[in-house]
Amino acid sequence: MSKSNRGRYFEDFRIGEVITHATPRTLTEADAALNIALTGTRYALFCADTFAQDCGLAQAPIDPLLVFHVVFGKSVPDISLNAVANLGYAEGKFLLPVYPGDTLHAVSEVLGLKQNSNAKTGVVTVRTTGVNQISEPVLSYVRWVMVNKRDENAPVENAPPTTPAPFVPANQLLLPPELDLSAYDAVLAGSPHYFEDYKPGEKIDHLDGVTVEEAEHQLATRLYQNTARVHFDAIAQSSSRFGKRLIYGGVAISLARALAFNGLGNAAYMLAINGGRHVNPLFAGDTLYAWSEVLEVADLGPAGALRLRLVATKNRPCADFPGKNEAGEYDPAVVLDFDYWAAIAKRI
Amino acid sequence: MSKSNRGRYFEDFRIGEVITHATPRTLTEADAALNIALTGTRYALFCADTFAQDCGLAQAPIDPLLVFHVVFGKSVPDISLNAVANLGYAEGKFLLPVYPGDTLHAVSEVLGLKQNSNAKTGVVTVRTTGVNQISEPVLSYVRWVMVNKRDENAPVENAPPTTPAPFVPANQLLLPPELDLSAYDAVLAGSPHYFEDYKPGEKIDHLDGVTVEEAEHQLATRLYQNTARVHFDAIAQSSSRFGKRLIYGGVAISLARALAFNGLGNAAYMLAINGGRHVNPLFAGDTLYAWSEVLEVADLGPAGALRLRLVATKNRPCADFPGKNEAGEYDPAVVLDFDYWAAIAKRI
Amino acid sequence: MSKSNRGRYFEDFRIGEVITHATPRTLTEADAALNIALTGTRYALFCADTFAQDCGLAQAPIDPLLVFHVVFGKSVPDISLNAVANLGYAEGKFLLPVYPGDTLHAVSEVLGLKQNSNAKTGVVTVRTTGVNQISEPVLSYVRWVMVNKRDENAPVENAPPTTPAPFVPANQLLLPPELDLSAYDAVLAGSPHYFEDYKPGEKIDHLDGVTVEEAEHQLATRLYQNTARVHFDAIAQSSSRFGKRLIYGGVAISLARALAFNGLGNAAYMLAINGGRHVNPLFAGDTLYAWSEVLEVADLGPAGALRLRLVATKNRPCADFPGKNEAGEYDPAVVLDFDYWAAIAKRI
Repeated sequence: MSKSNRGRYFEDFRIGEVITHATPRTLTEADAALNIALTGTRYALFCADTFAQDCGLAQAPIDPLLVFHVVFGKSVPDISLNAVANLGYAEGKFLLPVYPGDTLHAVSEVLGLKQNSNAKTGVVTVRTTGVNQISEPVLSYVRWVMVNKRDENAPVENAPPTTPAPFVPANQLLLPPELDLSAYDAVLAGSPHYFEDYKPGEKIDHLDGVTVEEAEHQLATRLYQNTARVHFDAIAQSSSRFGKRLIYGGVAISLARALAFNGLGNAAYMLAINGGRHVNPLFAGDTLYAWSEVLEVADLGPAGALRLRLVATKNRPCADFPGKNEAGEYDPAVVLDFDYWAAIAKRI
Repeated sequence: MSKSNRGRYFEDFRIGEVITHATPRTLTEADAALNIALTGTRYALFCADTFAQDCGLAQAPIDPLLVFHVVFGKSVPDISLNAVANLGYAEGKFLLPVYPGDTLHAVSEVLGLKQNSNAKTGVVTVRTTGVNQISEPVLSYVRWVMVNKRDENAPVENAPPTTPAPFVPANQLLLPPELDLSAYDAVLAGSPHYFEDYKPGEKIDHLDGVTVEEAEHQLATRLYQNTARVHFDAIAQSSSRFGKRLIYGGVAISLARALAFNGLGNAAYMLAINGGRHVNPLFAGDTLYAWSEVLEVADLGPAGALRLRLVATKNRPCADFPGKNEAGEYDPAVVLDFDYWAAIAKRI
Repeated sequence: MSKSNRGRYFEDFRIGEVITHATPRTLTEADAALNIALTGTRYALFCADTFAQDCGLAQAPIDPLLVFHVVFGKSVPDISLNAVANLGYAEGKFLLPVYPGDTLHAVSEVLGLKQNSNAKTGVVTVRTTGVNQISEPVLSYVRWVMVNKRDENAPVENAPPTTPAPFVPANQLLLPPELDLSAYDAVLAGSPHYFEDYKPGEKIDHLDGVTVEEAEHQLATRLYQNTARVHFDAIAQSSSRFGKRLIYGGVAISLARALAFNGLGNAAYMLAINGGRHVNPLFAGDTLYAWSEVLEVADLGPAGALRLRLVATKNRPCADFPGKNEAGEYDPAVVLDFDYWAAIAKRI
């Protein structure tokens, strides 16, 4: 029996099982700099220690989206190496800021198992938690993924999970306790728009586009230590239905969030991931554009929070906000429909 | 009115206006490492703390060219998002070393405004200053750029700037005060050639060539948080006069300076940028070569200084020093003609 | 005479000569992060300070392979700029761990000189040593390389070196003195297989493949400050026998070692490089696969050691372990045949 790991198949999962994922990772200033180089993100809170200190933090924290990708990446070898499709995620909550020097590992609990009627695949639902070096949870989210069976006839557990919440309610959002925006400098942050200026229903075209190269998404996905082979192996992919390497969906999220700086510059700190759908695959050579819609606003006291829908398209600018039509069908250019909460400074 | 920013047009600038640019940035060892990976630079002063300490510095400073790109990048969203052409820069002075951990932001003052006769564009002249976390200026330069008008009929200010100095005079050059080259190790630095060995008129072919990839220049330009869309959006660029993404001129400067290590290995510390002209555009797939000419030498006491002309070409080696012909026309392969001062160790 | 350096030719070397190489380099957490992004390596010891501390180390050391590439890179401008072929290396010993903040430089001693019968080239054998900031050797290896003569008629020294050892004997392997694996966490390390589980003759297919892009290998090779022009100059290479840029062999080694995590996750710490052969060139666009064979096992007391053969192929998966046939000819897909020792945790 070979010592190399082909990953779990559907029949290998057990309800209630807790899987500790490999390769703890100390995140450093280098990850922050690489995140800037790979995405072009400009939210001041993650770029400048002085700015973060003026916001009450010890230093610039690691961008929560980067934390998400790192935690997600750790779960891949155990959860989704034999995935047919990533079906979604929900109930994502950033529980504590992560700072350079913190070491993260990840743990997943199997919440649900539901075999598909064809007996070839099943849906695995897990709650994955990112944990820091003093055992504090920093991020938790639910994810469900369709996984192949190794053997169609293998017996399986069948325990569908409870339906995840459609979004994290505002009263469950956690601001970093030390956050203090009373001296917030919107000029340095690069946007004159405060919490009070955003209204539900408002749409923002983020204007710019960014063309993605193979080397860029591979570097990013390796930085996250996400080993899903669809992103890296052009030969294996040549016989896939797409014929080429797929860009990790998290790369699309981060690039779109970086574009969203233009219009949402003060909404730096992601508080929750309500859900996300990778509507179409993104490939190297595609140019990504993005727009946002304000879904909900919530006053959290020290800061406001915006619930935002971030839609990214490929090879089609977003001046007319392409999304779903009246029949509920997506514009064919849409690649991402992502729902999250971000903290934003209130007018002082 | 949308919250996303389309950038200023010519009629939006006011003489004497001071613009504080967004996204302060803490530069770290990671930026230094990325600078090495992106450019191949080998000047020992910026690569090794011990070498820098033997030169009297607290640790390896951030390469001044990287400081320039970061400061320049910050000014782009406010100054040149609607630029037709970057016409030049001058009077660039590095005023203080920048070390890992320092946080920079940038401020520009509008020095001149001159509408073109077609009333569709105008030339904006600014002085941009990079400032560290204790409000010390670390870099200052003048830049002029041709910017579109939003509305041809909009009234404009008309106040041509004073002509910038053709170069920074040697007596205005500032060595880092703590610099002490009395124990300078030329073997570790990689060059046996000291200040006294260089004479005005001397030309040096830097021999090597480097082919540039889309991913490389995009990573570099994002690291500088320079958002000019001509560098990133292949679809928008497909209808431009070049038909493809343009490489940020600063990438060409840094690559050429890295090649110039071969022949100028002791001339590590850039003191001033006298001027620069991006003669032709550089594209991914092009191979860059470079040569230098010594324009002037100056003894600054603790170190010498060389005023150098750095010429870079594309797809054409530089053994015969391609530049301008007698009619003043550039060889079509020339992409960069850059004039700067660098400190260099004197023979002990 | 130009100040730029064209590198040494065969007749420029002298037996016993000691060459101190340029550009000392402080390795930092940024190099570690870039190493992850460039290779996808997942060995926990180099990824997490906490994991390294639980193994008795002060913090996560720099991956020994990265140390090797950096030391090797420094020697290129002096030893192999005019190389026709890198013939091999041997007797590579990692003598001390390197930590972020350590500064390395490199020194080579010429051990052997043997002109080829055509008088156009000769073989130079050197011992290269990487040295840290307190003059401790951290790595030493022997390397031989075929170098052009500038002038066929130039007189040369002729002193063939003693034949290097075919491999480093186990009793010369040096574990980091502070290494303590008594609390080793194999779950976090990502592999259930300990020293005792590996037997000589065992082969492991590492399963995954990774397609290499020009930007990726150029970034890596520049990070190592390896200036060999065959890796960077597409125009010069267009008239070479390959017609295109060659990927530095060290990139193939690091990518293959990263793939080898799947099956050898606890064999993180490289102790020695016994030898390596770059059987075929690797180019951008190629997809690399790898397999390993256990050649020898040795109990070092605090840890075990595995002597491993790492074979990498291009564009051909390794399920059937392609190597040499009975006639001693390599499968045409093989690019690398590398022999090394790595420490591995013993069952507690």
